Amino acid sequence: MTIVPVILSGGSGTRLWPLSRAARPKQLLPLTGDQTMLQMTADRTRAGFAPPMIVANAAHAHEIEHQLGEVGVTPAALILEPAARNTAPAIALAAALAAPDALLLVMPSDHLIRDPDAFLAAVRTAAPAAGQGWLVTFGITPDRPEIGYGYIRAGDPVLPGVLRAERFLEKPDVVTAEALVADGRHHWNAGIFLFRADALLAALAGHAPDVLRAVQAAVAARSGEGLRILPDPDSFAAAPSISIDYAVMEKAERVAIVPVSMGWSDIGSWDALHEVGGKDAAGNHVAGDVIAIDSSNCLIRTDGPAVITVGIQDLIVIATRDAVLVVPRGESQRVKQAVEALKARGGKEL
Amino acid sequence: MTIVPVILSGGSGTRLWPLSRAARPKQLLPLTGDQTMLQMTADRTRAGFAPPMIVANAAHAHEIEHQLGEVGVTPAALILEPAARNTAPAIALAAALAAPDALLLVMPSDHLIRDPDAFLAAVRTAAPAAGQGWLVTFGITPDRPEIGYGYIRAGDPVLPGVLRAERFLEKPDVVTAEALVADGRHHWNAGIFLFRADALLAALAGHAPDVLRAVQAAVAARSGEGLRILPDPDSFAAAPSISIDYAVMEKAERVAIVPVSMGWSDIGSWDALHEVGGKDAAGNHVAGDVIAIDSSNCLIRTDGPAVITVGIQDLIVIATRDAVLVVPRGESQRVKQAVEALKARGGKEL
Repeated sequence: MTIVPVILSGGSGTRLWPLSRAARPKQLLPLTGDQTMLQMTADRTRAGFAPPMIVANAAHAHEIEHQLGEVGVTPAALILEPAARNTAPAIALAAALAAPDALLLVMPSDHLIRDPDAFLAAVRTAAPAAGQGWLVTFGITPDRPEIGYGYIRAGDPVLPGVLRAERFLEKPDVVTAEALVADGRHHWNAGIFLFRADALLAALAGHAPDVLRAVQAAVAARSGEGLRILPDPDSFAAAPSISIDYAVMEKAERVAIVPVSMGWSDIGSWDALHEVGGKDAAGNHVAGDVIAIDSSNCLIRTDGPAVITVGIQDLIVIATRDAVLVVPRGESQRVKQAVEALKARGGKEL
Repeated sequence: MTIVPVILSGGSGTRLWPLSRAARPKQLLPLTGDQTMLQMTADRTRAGFAPPMIVANAAHAHEIEHQLGEVGVTPAALILEPAARNTAPAIALAAALAAPDALLLVMPSDHLIRDPDAFLAAVRTAAPAAGQGWLVTFGITPDRPEIGYGYIRAGDPVLPGVLRAERFLEKPDVVTAEALVADGRHHWNAGIFLFRADALLAALAGHAPDVLRAVQAAVAARSGEGLRILPDPDSFAAAPSISIDYAVMEKAERVAIVPVSMGWSDIGSWDALHEVGGKDAAGNHVAGDVIAIDSSNCLIRTDGPAVITVGIQDLIVIATRDAVLVVPRGESQRVKQAVEALKARGGKEL
């Protein structure tokens, strides 16, 4: 069975502002090393898979081609979304364009996987079930009561290492999260999936027919140039904006989960990057032109001015040419307050 | 008697780095309001004095003329030092060029005086003594045991409000400073003076003849254009680099002090600026494109990128186009560690 990676690069999050911008979102930034998150994601797909399909914001087409070229990955297709419609329409585009019996390995472009071998083993575990028509999710075994993720409850085995996905839970409160982690049956929903293209299309037909209709029309009337595929904008605009979880996974009959521990992080905040990123002896994660003097347990990054800190602790300092953010470590979710304040005055720094 | 202000603009300090630079030192920056420190200093000299003489670094001539023009002050002369030689040669240049019987009111260009009326009253108090040939210093009545300044001990009265200056003390340790403040006889040496030009030249002849000789030669061979006076570089280079305190004040016979409380600050650090600068309800002093969210008791300034802080306390954040400094409030003297680190790698941000 051919496994076709589908890399979703539609995100334009602001949680890593001011480094992430509309024009250069998180997946296009080098956050944990020399390679960008997209490059690392693409690099992982070379382990015996077919060339990947990329689904991306049309505005990023050139940068994505450039970054893939740097790491020597030639995609099977670069599907350029005419509008942002969340993950269900994005994944449906790939499914409609792929061979019906292809196994689509859907993954976000901006997640860190520090143990790629564990990831590949989990994909091998999932493949037989996906081949039988199961929609397989990969559930991250939780190591803390995280309230920022959704959880999936695993039920009875359906194949070796593959369990029925009994229930999808939204982001819980902390008491609930603690109970979920303690019972050993719940796993984080990382938005990574394996399924046959035709199985996904059938599930869409049953549970989200408006998504399927719009996407099929957009694909039928597509244009393109080289590897770029441009779905018809008017048709695609009719698709509702809806996640694959809401549209399909929480509703379909044959949904399974493969639990996996693979050093996963979605690097959903500056605090998360401090946690997973390399650190100096004083616990500082620094990147760019930074001089940290007598400073400890800080995250300090710049792609603009030199940043010099003296005698600070537990701070996040992010500098770019046009914006500097300073927030205590442990409070990096408050970047959204900064983003809101900037939006209120025009938001040119976003 | 004509009182001729002599404004010393030779400083190129780094204590307010990264805002102060070699090309734009503290006196040329607007630190406490819309006007630069030089502009505020020049503005004060309009209260019944003759037009000021400015002694400055030749590299700043154009900027100084521009800034003085903005506040409508036309100097009597702009004396451009061919090299930096500390205050004794700088003041000697002005004394050698002034009328012998002029009273020179020497003042740094980068000090804040929040009560200019008290300053003017002190000058009026000092004038009779200066007219009699006393070298008069203005001593700031201390309000705290500051270890960053020199102190002057006041002795017996020589004229109303004018006391003999008994002793000059270098920057003390904190125990000594507490004793000096407690005894009520010691005042901060602010580097502000009033004396006859010929009295200063006579004191130089007695106590620093090498300074006088070099300066007189430099003045004799001067060139100039408009209000600009260019002392001869080769002659001036022969002057030792020495402060007026070491060269004259600590040695001369007839040195007096007029104690004064005039809301004085030399704004010698970011902490000092936080202390004297305007603050919002949360105790933040901000300037430039700053958004301070849930932040308190901070000093946040930028003349480059927008600075957004969320949830921070007691921090100093200074941003420019090419450098950002972050240091805890109360530790701003540590900016010198940042400056040293930058020097070690080339110092282009200085």
